[in-house]
Amino acid sequence: MKVIIEGAGYMGTSLGMALTRAGGEVRFIDLNSGHAELASARVGKTFEGPGDLFVAAVPTPAVAEVIKSAFRQNLATSFTDLGSTKTNVQREVETFGLSEHFCGGHPMAGSERSGPAGARSDLFEGRPWVITPSEKTNPATLVLVRELALSVGALPVLLTPESHDRAVAEVSHGPQVLASLLASALQQVDEAHLTIAGQGLRDTTRIAGSHRDVWAPILSTNGAEIAAFLEPISEELERVIGSLKAGDTHALGSLIERGNLGRDRIPGKHGSSTREYDQISVVLPDKPGQLALLFDIFGELQVNVEDISMEHSPGLPSGLLQLSLPVGKGEETVEALIERDWRAFTLSG
Amino acid sequence: MKVIIEGAGYMGTSLGMALTRAGGEVRFIDLNSGHAELASARVGKTFEGPGDLFVAAVPTPAVAEVIKSAFRQNLATSFTDLGSTKTNVQREVETFGLSEHFCGGHPMAGSERSGPAGARSDLFEGRPWVITPSEKTNPATLVLVRELALSVGALPVLLTPESHDRAVAEVSHGPQVLASLLASALQQVDEAHLTIAGQGLRDTTRIAGSHRDVWAPILSTNGAEIAAFLEPISEELERVIGSLKAGDTHALGSLIERGNLGRDRIPGKHGSSTREYDQISVVLPDKPGQLALLFDIFGELQVNVEDISMEHSPGLPSGLLQLSLPVGKGEETVEALIERDWRAFTLSG
Repeated sequence: MKVIIEGAGYMGTSLGMALTRAGGEVRFIDLNSGHAELASARVGKTFEGPGDLFVAAVPTPAVAEVIKSAFRQNLATSFTDLGSTKTNVQREVETFGLSEHFCGGHPMAGSERSGPAGARSDLFEGRPWVITPSEKTNPATLVLVRELALSVGALPVLLTPESHDRAVAEVSHGPQVLASLLASALQQVDEAHLTIAGQGLRDTTRIAGSHRDVWAPILSTNGAEIAAFLEPISEELERVIGSLKAGDTHALGSLIERGNLGRDRIPGKHGSSTREYDQISVVLPDKPGQLALLFDIFGELQVNVEDISMEHSPGLPSGLLQLSLPVGKGEETVEALIERDWRAFTLSG
Repeated sequence: MKVIIEGAGYMGTSLGMALTRAGGEVRFIDLNSGHAELASARVGKTFEGPGDLFVAAVPTPAVAEVIKSAFRQNLATSFTDLGSTKTNVQREVETFGLSEHFCGGHPMAGSERSGPAGARSDLFEGRPWVITPSEKTNPATLVLVRELALSVGALPVLLTPESHDRAVAEVSHGPQVLASLLASALQQVDEAHLTIAGQGLRDTTRIAGSHRDVWAPILSTNGAEIAAFLEPISEELERVIGSLKAGDTHALGSLIERGNLGRDRIPGKHGSSTREYDQISVVLPDKPGQLALLFDIFGELQVNVEDISMEHSPGLPSGLLQLSLPVGKGEETVEALIERDWRAFTLSG
């Protein structure tokens, strides 16, 4: 596949690297010639003339113009983009009369990084790549965009442009707003109070570290869908504040229960619920080589670690590892670790 | 130290185990004689008669009565508790005229578990333990409660009962309500939309998995403080919904920025910001023994891993490890890994 990528930033360059690794050919275009050169140098393989597919890897507000210009220059016969919102681009592309040749795309991968220097060829591996054909998109274009996603290891998910924008409002943009609101409120909190913060606050506010330049355009472009998702939450928050003031244990318990039910709907690793693993916990002395010793033992026991995280709190002298193991392996692994003088505990059951 | 613990549940039994390990003597009292026996069996060392310190390790609503009864039986001359809220207990204890002999406590450790079987002696290690003396608390009692926390490896933090309740509303109870509200809204989300959820949604809603039986009493007991923390957030959420509808990029950018500032105030591992580490990323093939191979290399390179997490998304064929290394170690570690045919990347800078 010959692909022209306009926008040699973090996403565009990563896509080019991934495509080249998969045997494709890539040509970069960027107003910033330094970026285009660096990206071309990183992929190596390039070509002259038009391509099979044109990818607009520019910020969402610029996508439609870039595609219109590429179409006029006959750079390709099929066009896609990587933007975070889809209905606005779709509408503009239809205005230009390009509907047949266009199929929107949105790889669910990203980072706080920018620029071609930090790009990575594995960025899309195992990630959902939402593809948003319109009723007018021609089959050849849809097939090419699907191939693009598959060739870089992504998992294509077909949605309409409208469903896509609702979905990202629900699973990404709305949560971002709430995390930023909560983190913002911490500005007024006494420093002594923050010293007793645990992992819960850190997890809940992690994405509040996101960059303004990335998020302000996303939030304003998809404002209607995000507002529609947040409005019932806002109304429910007002009701909950009433329940808190009234000390209404029943209503507050019901909130926690509904949270449990919603939480359980999020797919975990390999599309399955995290409940399907044995959870164990291991105390890890804070000195070099301890993880190596520990994972040597896992290797010896032939136990695969499905998930891992480290819990930490201020001043902690030793780390606490949380590990997910295949079902049935938890108890025996803990016993084997204790025999070897590790402090280990099962957490499930 | 001789300590009588009333309540042989998860917290009380863990405290008993930690105290015994530190050389103390422990006696358990529990209405559930099976729990008391199991807890006693787990600590081994016990004593007869009164103790130096009495710990009420019962649910918060029962604390004051349990302490009054213990005082009448002369079980000790100093009394404390482990409850999640403090002003309500303080008020009741003062009503009984026990103020001098009482100093509240709240170890910031816990879990979704309950009962003595799952108790663990390292539960309090490195965790903040809030101690809430009143103006009337006698010095001997304050010293004993501080010793209790230190002997089990916790980090004593002194706050007034009122400050404690505000602090936990800000760093724990308020975030719990918001996480539960967000997760609850996921009940109405189309299943196809949830398949594109990333790590952000998982992190933001992790604590929404908490149990109703634990949280409903906490939220209703500390309702006024939690409401006071959430009210400005609720008002701000309404304003943000307005900005979203208006597509006000400037206001939405300001929200993200304020979130950055608040997020940066949360202390990380060893009390320092997470920014003080080099972040690297390593692709981990999904087969046994890979972590062992990887950490052997870290051992060989004498690099200490400060933090670790695994990123995963539905259908991911290989895991992506995120590692925090001491500053200055990121680049050389990535180079060393690439030399050994690992796919590794620096994430900082």
